[in-house]
Amino acid sequence: MADADIPTLEFWYDFASPYSYISAYRIERMISGHSIKLVWRPFLLGPIFKKLSDDASPFQRASPAERRYRRRDIERLCTAYQIPLVWPSNYPRGSLPATRIAMIAANEGWCGAFSRSVYKANYADDLDIADKSVLADVLSSLGRNAVQILEKAETVEVKSELAQQVDRAISTGIFGAPSFLICGELFWGNDRLEQAIAWTRT
Amino acid sequence: MADADIPTLEFWYDFASPYSYISAYRIERMISGHSIKLVWRPFLLGPIFKKLSDDASPFQRASPAERRYRRRDIERLCTAYQIPLVWPSNYPRGSLPATRIAMIAANEGWCGAFSRSVYKANYADDLDIADKSVLADVLSSLGRNAVQILEKAETVEVKSELAQQVDRAISTGIFGAPSFLICGELFWGNDRLEQAIAWTRT
Repeated sequence: MADADIPTLEFWYDFASPYSYISAYRIERMISGHSIKLVWRPFLLGPIFKKLSDDASPFQRASPAERRYRRRDIERLCTAYQIPLVWPSNYPRGSLPATRIAMIAANEGWCGAFSRSVYKANYADDLDIADKSVLADVLSSLGRNAVQILEKAETVEVKSELAQQVDRAISTGIFGAPSFLICGELFWGNDRLEQAIAWTRT
Repeated sequence: MADADIPTLEFWYDFASPYSYISAYRIERMISGHSIKLVWRPFLLGPIFKKLSDDASPFQRASPAERRYRRRDIERLCTAYQIPLVWPSNYPRGSLPATRIAMIAANEGWCGAFSRSVYKANYADDLDIADKSVLADVLSSLGRNAVQILEKAETVEVKSELAQQVDRAISTGIFGAPSFLICGELFWGNDRLEQAIAWTRT
């Protein structure tokens, strides 16, 4: 199969989303053996919730029963997938600074490793991913120049690129995370990852 | 295994819920071969949404993007599971009259067949399941005395039994449908049915 014929799986995720964390850890293993090109699409749900529903996030408006359930559901899934989980002492955490860096990482080809490290910091090490010193440590551990990248992440170019990414999410019909876009078809939720991958056969 | 040792899978569903429709068609096939006793638990989500969030239903407060997605998701799932689907011209339909009858059916042991027929009327034949003549036809097609049952469904006993069922759903932590309760563990969503069944092994 020529490279141009290989279907692209776009993985849209927000660093605050625990189900996206699970998908970020599963996705590369899931597509191995399939002729699928994976594209990491970091984005922000906050502005989408605001624009779509003029309302708080689903986390905030969920009833206590639903919140309890979601947490239990995530714990069970992490156990089943053998993904480490320490529930964040502050939830949901601000994902903006990490997402700006991820935009740079996506352009430079190290977005997968960076995103998994940020998720690990948030959901396994209970670190504040909105704190730039935490992000600097993540960058250093990946052999990146933390000072330079943190500076670049604050430029107008990166901010505008992220704003465009969010606009593209909205125009694609994305309203939650994780979302998967493949062959023009949208799938929402970690539990739809298998179906998204299988979609190339339909 | 003695009957008393067989784990019980409680299937909680609302006739307005399309994901419950899918589960109602899958559940008996899914548990076949497992030592699991299935209990049908018809209930109403409306009073739960009101009580839990003092808000409209998730259907009503969902953004247009999410509504479009949900419908597409349900269509894809029905295709995959080979379950017929004609999207109801009126959605969601009132499930109260059918649920009262289902309470009687659950006590008398014909709740599975009745529930599938009601779902078929709503989601495959586009009939108004809030209309008693539609319910009478469903009952007659199952060889039941429609007049007698429709009358019984309006009694204080049945109404109070249904109110208790809804209260039990709330005290169990149920906030959506379908929900599955097995060995004290709650699972929400048609996409958690497999996990609920596997839970007996943990």
